[in-house]
Amino acid sequence: MYRLLLRLLSLGVVWIAVARGEDGYRLWLRYDPVTDEAKRREYAAAITEIVLPTTAPTRAERGAMRPAFAARDELLAGIRDLILLVANRDIGLLYGAFALLREIQLHRSLTNMNLVSAPRIQRRVLNHWDNLNRIAERGYAGQSLWEWFQLPDYVNPRYRDYARACASIGINGAVLNNVNADALILTAPYLQKVSALAGVFRPYGVRVYLSARFSAPVEIGGLKTADPLDPAVAKWWQDKAAEIYRVIPDFGGFLVKANSEGQPGPQSYGRTHADGANLIADALAPYGGIVMWRAFVYDDGVPDDRAKQAYNEFQPLDGKFHSNVIVQIKNGPIDFMPREPFHPLFGAMPHTPLALEVQITQEYLGASTQLAYLGPLFKECMDADTFRNGPGTTVAKIVDGSQDLHGISAIAGVANIGTDRNWCGHPLAAANWYVYGRLAWDHTLGADAIAEEWVRQTFANDPRVVKPVTAMLLASREAVVDYSMPRGLHHIMAEGHHYGPGPWVDGARRADWNSVYYHRADAIGLGFDRTSKGSNALAQYAPEVARRWSDLATCPDELLLWFHHVPWDYRMRSGATLWDELGRHYQSGVDAVRSWEKTWDVLADLIDEERFYHVQALLRRQERDAREWRDACLQYFQTFSHLSLPAGVEAPEHPLDYYRAHTLHFVPGSSSIK
Amino acid sequence: MYRLLLRLLSLGVVWIAVARGEDGYRLWLRYDPVTDEAKRREYAAAITEIVLPTTAPTRAERGAMRPAFAARDELLAGIRDLILLVANRDIGLLYGAFALLREIQLHRSLTNMNLVSAPRIQRRVLNHWDNLNRIAERGYAGQSLWEWFQLPDYVNPRYRDYARACASIGINGAVLNNVNADALILTAPYLQKVSALAGVFRPYGVRVYLSARFSAPVEIGGLKTADPLDPAVAKWWQDKAAEIYRVIPDFGGFLVKANSEGQPGPQSYGRTHADGANLIADALAPYGGIVMWRAFVYDDGVPDDRAKQAYNEFQPLDGKFHSNVIVQIKNGPIDFMPREPFHPLFGAMPHTPLALEVQITQEYLGASTQLAYLGPLFKECMDADTFRNGPGTTVAKIVDGSQDLHGISAIAGVANIGTDRNWCGHPLAAANWYVYGRLAWDHTLGADAIAEEWVRQTFANDPRVVKPVTAMLLASREAVVDYSMPRGLHHIMAEGHHYGPGPWVDGARRADWNSVYYHRADAIGLGFDRTSKGSNALAQYAPEVARRWSDLATCPDELLLWFHHVPWDYRMRSGATLWDELGRHYQSGVDAVRSWEKTWDVLADLIDEERFYHVQALLRRQERDAREWRDACLQYFQTFSHLSLPAGVEAPEHPLDYYRAHTLHFVPGSSSIK
Repeated sequence: MYRLLLRLLSLGVVWIAVARGEDGYRLWLRYDPVTDEAKRREYAAAITEIVLPTTAPTRAERGAMRPAFAARDELLAGIRDLILLVANRDIGLLYGAFALLREIQLHRSLTNMNLVSAPRIQRRVLNHWDNLNRIAERGYAGQSLWEWFQLPDYVNPRYRDYARACASIGINGAVLNNVNADALILTAPYLQKVSALAGVFRPYGVRVYLSARFSAPVEIGGLKTADPLDPAVAKWWQDKAAEIYRVIPDFGGFLVKANSEGQPGPQSYGRTHADGANLIADALAPYGGIVMWRAFVYDDGVPDDRAKQAYNEFQPLDGKFHSNVIVQIKNGPIDFMPREPFHPLFGAMPHTPLALEVQITQEYLGASTQLAYLGPLFKECMDADTFRNGPGTTVAKIVDGSQDLHGISAIAGVANIGTDRNWCGHPLAAANWYVYGRLAWDHTLGADAIAEEWVRQTFANDPRVVKPVTAMLLASREAVVDYSMPRGLHHIMAEGHHYGPGPWVDGARRADWNSVYYHRADAIGLGFDRTSKGSNALAQYAPEVARRWSDLATCPDELLLWFHHVPWDYRMRSGATLWDELGRHYQSGVDAVRSWEKTWDVLADLIDEERFYHVQALLRRQERDAREWRDACLQYFQTFSHLSLPAGVEAPEHPLDYYRAHTLHFVPGSSSIK
Repeated sequence: MYRLLLRLLSLGVVWIAVARGEDGYRLWLRYDPVTDEAKRREYAAAITEIVLPTTAPTRAERGAMRPAFAARDELLAGIRDLILLVANRDIGLLYGAFALLREIQLHRSLTNMNLVSAPRIQRRVLNHWDNLNRIAERGYAGQSLWEWFQLPDYVNPRYRDYARACASIGINGAVLNNVNADALILTAPYLQKVSALAGVFRPYGVRVYLSARFSAPVEIGGLKTADPLDPAVAKWWQDKAAEIYRVIPDFGGFLVKANSEGQPGPQSYGRTHADGANLIADALAPYGGIVMWRAFVYDDGVPDDRAKQAYNEFQPLDGKFHSNVIVQIKNGPIDFMPREPFHPLFGAMPHTPLALEVQITQEYLGASTQLAYLGPLFKECMDADTFRNGPGTTVAKIVDGSQDLHGISAIAGVANIGTDRNWCGHPLAAANWYVYGRLAWDHTLGADAIAEEWVRQTFANDPRVVKPVTAMLLASREAVVDYSMPRGLHHIMAEGHHYGPGPWVDGARRADWNSVYYHRADAIGLGFDRTSKGSNALAQYAPEVARRWSDLATCPDELLLWFHHVPWDYRMRSGATLWDELGRHYQSGVDAVRSWEKTWDVLADLIDEERFYHVQALLRRQERDAREWRDACLQYFQTFSHLSLPAGVEAPEHPLDYYRAHTLHFVPGSSSIK
């Protein structure tokens, strides 16, 4: 670990030389020479020498953070002014080193610096939805990083840079393969490949996890069944676990998507999710491995609101899971929409550790083509009050274990990382990787503060850059909501690839994949009635929440159409009718993007050419996309409202039929060919 | 053009700074400071100033190379010692600049330098088998470079670097999409994207071509037929050509794969290849565009040797093609095997311009995982004597037009380029891009000289590097032949992905996709009898060639099993039996790879870490792969020969059943998922 620390610091020098091109490869770890002369002198004076203890602590210690260090006295001997970096475990020194470097990158003073930090959530995991053919489902930044065909023979140096970036923001786990899993990943040749990756990640504290296909015992094990209560199946998982830990001693565990969207699972054998999760968890238990079992289940065969189905399925299982199972729940009850209410399972399963799953990759927020900084979205969910144990029972407290203490806590982010040179496609999209890591470490940080520190590290400390770029980032998610799915609208995007508008979608294979299922536009109004007069999804929340959201008068405007079917002429808080306010939001989303284009153009001389041009080109595209959303959705809803476009909304560029016929082909992130 | 030239030179400086990482991105254009002090001083003295004419020539001139320059006198005025760079056309100045830079990179003297060079073939084209979903068929270096979804909004700077690399070796055309074409590429939105690429390539003299799907008039034109004799179809192609040239005024033309491997074509309407080619050529003619019509056709419904079918189909059409059609013929009659005899159509269609198509990407020579420098393969075909117009009628002379002068001449190379940082996957695979360009420019150059200049530019001028690496390159293609398909064996690779051995393949959908169709092993011997007693494919060659290859005594050893079914105990020229010699070749291929591993290890201190390690890892893999080829093929053939392994051949690591069962998944370059 000490050797690693020195290497990390020295790497800074190398990276400076490499990156004159500013192609985004260095992410937020640019470590350019400090340009502020006074700061430079201060840092040079403060850091003259790196002193390491001559002996490492005898044993890595576990437990909570404590402000001491086994070898502190030894370190202190003979030194006066010093920056002391202490940690309970080796990996903490690495985190501390990155924190120190961050302070310097942010041009903060090191005088009287006293930083204490510990992660609030134990397992801070990236979920890569990467198929073994290197197509990343919902990946918009090139191919999967993992070169399965070349592994384990050739180990691309980029794997190390990935792990280093993760470590720099405290991410300590990676699920390497898609939740729609191929059982092949669990065969011996692939485990050798996984082991090679684990070897690269290990010094950076990033543990490897895998998505396991529930039917693997049949597909690669030669068994006739994957029934979780079949002893041969249990034996197969036990043997597989033993095999995995032989080659990857610090293997993190399995992520499982079961009985969801066509995936196999325990219900195929008349068993429960708990039966399935416990089966696999028991196999991992001897080695300290865990199972992250996803609650993302829904079935259009079930005659109930899709938003209710995960709760219906999982809530009754509270208390039935073994102690090394964590139930992984998406932030909202549908599917990573630009805005959702928090998922009703949070707070409803006090006897079960619950992991929060967010999507870093922008499946429903414009892929890596549009700017959407997701810090505010993540925070909105984390800070949401479930009221399950009185006021202040936030989602974050449930997830981090401070509400109901469990043996494990975890958070999962679906990665937006690929082989594109700049890692995330859009030059500003790495902010989402960054903010995910920072909030996973400490969810009390502000999305605004994190945006600013990312901008400072990624571009410059110059306030002429920091202020406008940070402001753009902070406004971006709400702008995407505005021009695509404002006021609680959801799931009205184009089918399949999910890029662009599709409010008219009504012919999908499953009813609950249709847009009309969700917006329910008719002559009277718009929105999904989830009150007791409708699907009564609101009954799944704590009474305080349900009461507030059930009443049109107290339901927040931004969730209105999620929970209510609202007449077109309903007066909103603003005094405008629903129809008028809808129009204004669509227009305001477009206006926001236009304002960023102007903001960005001013930065021409302050940002390197390559990234400047790239963002400029993508903003232009985003404006066109935003106009398409506005023109398509308003004209479509107009066929129900029969009202003229609200004042202030620009006339559409094309008639509705044009947008309905506008087909995109080969959108990245889809596994299918077209 | 003058501005471009200066930029090119200044770019050298930038690249130096960027590339400390030596990740291969710079290809052979590294332009590092000259380390030889004497040379450095010589160059510094020779190049003190760049003088450009104040006025450009009034008009780009066409015609053959001439050693003068319109503004020469103006240039000369007042200058004494100078390096004069002259060209007939602007683009020639760029080629000249690259030639000059190459001289410097090679540490050659500039004193009394007198280089004159002109391309022997007019159109030096790369064929990208890139699908619109960015999967490159038989591509082993990441995704397709072309970011269709982002284009035309965002134009990746890498496109420029691609065009620059092409220009540096004289490549002047690129077919952007797969010959198995999607008609969508010809729709207006895609043409806008193509136009953006053409705009980047234009200053580098690289013209854009497209693969056209013959049934496009039906698929995107709304017609009921694509019959080439239907006037509405002709009109559709005329309109499409007009549309294309409006947005890409220097569009090169179309490449067409018709009635081949399931592709639509004129025969679907009872018409000939000439009817189809002329239809499209006529539409392009007003704009100077051409059609490159592929002769790669075969049909397992036809009860004849696959090797004969292209000739049978095309030879009778000689003289029937319009003047802007060129028939594009693969180097050999099957399909880019590690070794093939030259294609019998070369020399057999004197009234038709014929393009040579070679495969730069290593579909049958180990993908980008194995080292196989293809210079010797390309040269073998170019230098092959067809005897069609007496001795010396080489394939190259037919292709370059010096044999039968036509209005156009062309050469096509199936590209091995992708998004991998080093462009071609294997750090040594860019040598194949390079040698293709150099030979396309001047096929009289030696494969050995080109290998050496590539090594010098790509690694170092240090003879401790140049000699062994060049030797490895030069030996590599023959080693691949030896360990996979020696002595004229062909098409015995694994099915589908074509990586690794599959001599037992006998269940493919088409008879002519089975290995057993080609090797014909039985109790008596091995090989495909293509003499008059067999398929008589030899009758398609000139009598001189046919005579020599028909006789076992005069047929070259390396083509023996291509043309003859040879008894296991047949005495080869070496004195050994066929069986023994076969074994020795398989062993010798393995031995060669082993020797490179040793050679390479010695270079540890002479080659940068990243590329050194990468090649080292791949060589280790190649040795394992070579052993698998040897052990699988010899044991398989042993089931026919019933002879024990020849002396000197190592005992196989696994029994035959192991290799038959060894299945590779997710091999890059396949469009299918598994």
